[in-house]
Amino acid sequence: MAHALRIAARGLGRTWPNPAVGCVIVKAGVIVGRGWTQPGGRPHAEVMALAQAGANAQGATAYVTLEPCAHHGKTGPCALALVAAGVARVVSALQDPDPRVSGQGHAILRGAGVEVIENVMHAEAIRANAGFLKRVRAGLPFVTLKLATTLDGRIATASGESRWITGASARRATHAMRLNHDAVMIGSGTARADDPDLTVRDLGAGHQPLRIVMDTHLSHNPDSRLGRSAKTHPIWLIHGPDAPAQARDAWAGQGAILLESACENNHLDPRAALQRLAAQGLTRIFCEGGGTLAASLIRAKLVDDLALFTAGALIGADGQASLAALNLAALKDAPRLTLRETKIFGPDAYSLWSV
Amino acid sequence: MAHALRIAARGLGRTWPNPAVGCVIVKAGVIVGRGWTQPGGRPHAEVMALAQAGANAQGATAYVTLEPCAHHGKTGPCALALVAAGVARVVSALQDPDPRVSGQGHAILRGAGVEVIENVMHAEAIRANAGFLKRVRAGLPFVTLKLATTLDGRIATASGESRWITGASARRATHAMRLNHDAVMIGSGTARADDPDLTVRDLGAGHQPLRIVMDTHLSHNPDSRLGRSAKTHPIWLIHGPDAPAQARDAWAGQGAILLESACENNHLDPRAALQRLAAQGLTRIFCEGGGTLAASLIRAKLVDDLALFTAGALIGADGQASLAALNLAALKDAPRLTLRETKIFGPDAYSLWSV
Repeated sequence: MAHALRIAARGLGRTWPNPAVGCVIVKAGVIVGRGWTQPGGRPHAEVMALAQAGANAQGATAYVTLEPCAHHGKTGPCALALVAAGVARVVSALQDPDPRVSGQGHAILRGAGVEVIENVMHAEAIRANAGFLKRVRAGLPFVTLKLATTLDGRIATASGESRWITGASARRATHAMRLNHDAVMIGSGTARADDPDLTVRDLGAGHQPLRIVMDTHLSHNPDSRLGRSAKTHPIWLIHGPDAPAQARDAWAGQGAILLESACENNHLDPRAALQRLAAQGLTRIFCEGGGTLAASLIRAKLVDDLALFTAGALIGADGQASLAALNLAALKDAPRLTLRETKIFGPDAYSLWSV
Repeated sequence: MAHALRIAARGLGRTWPNPAVGCVIVKAGVIVGRGWTQPGGRPHAEVMALAQAGANAQGATAYVTLEPCAHHGKTGPCALALVAAGVARVVSALQDPDPRVSGQGHAILRGAGVEVIENVMHAEAIRANAGFLKRVRAGLPFVTLKLATTLDGRIATASGESRWITGASARRATHAMRLNHDAVMIGSGTARADDPDLTVRDLGAGHQPLRIVMDTHLSHNPDSRLGRSAKTHPIWLIHGPDAPAQARDAWAGQGAILLESACENNHLDPRAALQRLAAQGLTRIFCEGGGTLAASLIRAKLVDDLALFTAGALIGADGQASLAALNLAALKDAPRLTLRETKIFGPDAYSLWSV
């Protein structure tokens, strides 16, 4: 199952709206088939692994990181495929929360005489499927907030200079993190200040995550790097009802997808915006700031993981904060996060925290 | 030598103005004597180790983390003691920069027919003796700046609430760090806001580091925790020439030591203040903030190490910054530090950086 979870992770960022599943088929102690959900969400992991196993699947054990599907979608249900291949035993990590499956995949297997063992490496599977689970259960995507700051929590000098605070190794790690999310998201302030293109570079990447800008008034210039690359790499702009028609037309002309979402006090309501994205099928979003968007997501309790890169530099209180005001009444109201792992990337420290 | 360096560290924080030295005497592959500089700076490590070795020192090898002293102070020179004990070989990590020694210890040994091998584990010995070396060479103490911040670099809420951002384990580690410095230092703002006592608690500590407040105008209340404990635990107040006579009298009455130092633009000149402290014999200072003092030390390039505790909490930009303004003109002017180590203390991450 550990191996199945590891190969499942290869699909992260490319299988939405489907979960990234892994399947390992073992016969007499030998792996005879391995598969993971393919880009776009199909073929499913089980189909890939069964194809590799061929006749060896007969009497074998299949390890799956998520309950095999039970519904007839564009492909037949995986539960039936496992039965047809003669698999003797299915070890499953997690029941699928999708109401079209939700226990029926396991039931089909048992009904056909296949032994089913459930909830093996359950906690790890919940973590691995966090994006898919959150979309199905809460109608929201899993959000990783990235902060890359100095030792004193600054992301730019007073004049806005931010290239580069972290080193090449940390920036490369950031690109790898973009790759295992469905989309990269920034606020309009960062878009205007940095004119980024938010693509994944230098990693031999065969796919690019979606690029999303939360831009209430569509203030970002359609002739920016994001705008000019919209026809080759999808870009979605979430804007409020009052975004000017001229800006809508200009961005649409560049090939961007425009998603109107509700406002509150003249700012996009972050929950409504993320619900909109989940409804479009997105399961994992990598937010790269800036401080205003980060604070709005934190205040609305929409952040799941926080990835912190800490550079050995000091800018001082006149520099720009990584997180805008939270207006806490007391320290006990401060959001608390749990340390999940630490790493070192070249000259920079890295820590991953979960809300 | 690695073992000698390890036992030398036991003296850190207690041997000033002397260095914290370690000595291990080995004969026929067996350790026959170990010693480290005792509290107050004497007996020296070699004297302790020779006493333990007794007659076994005859023909043995002595590993010393710093060149044995050559001058007649309150005790005879260690170089002669090693000769008198019949030590055959001395392996030394570092020449003593003290002009009264500076090669003469090694010369005495060689003159008496003792084999001397120098600069073994040289880099480690430079690090271990950093405080003593900086005092002797630059007339300044080695300064460790401690920051204990949220993930977004805040040390208190907007209302000043800071207890507690980090957990018990990080606070305990902080107390252990206080112990291996000669003194703990804070600014007057932190003294007034937190009313700390800056003692080491719960570590079975047999000694307490000096407590120092940088307080230009002697604004801290003499009836504070620091003031009331001055008779039992030394407290030094560094103040400017304009500090009111009444405050000087009140603090002196509590038993505090008052050190007048030069001002610049109505603030203590941090370099002059630290020179004053080095002249008093201090070699290692642990600065616990706040942001104004930290920034003044950073701007004047007086910080050597930065110890960062990062708590899994978020306060936002309306909270208090860990570091006041540095007024950098460009990002290339930002002080850059090198990551030395990372650790985890309970729920908090820790990283140590060197300038």
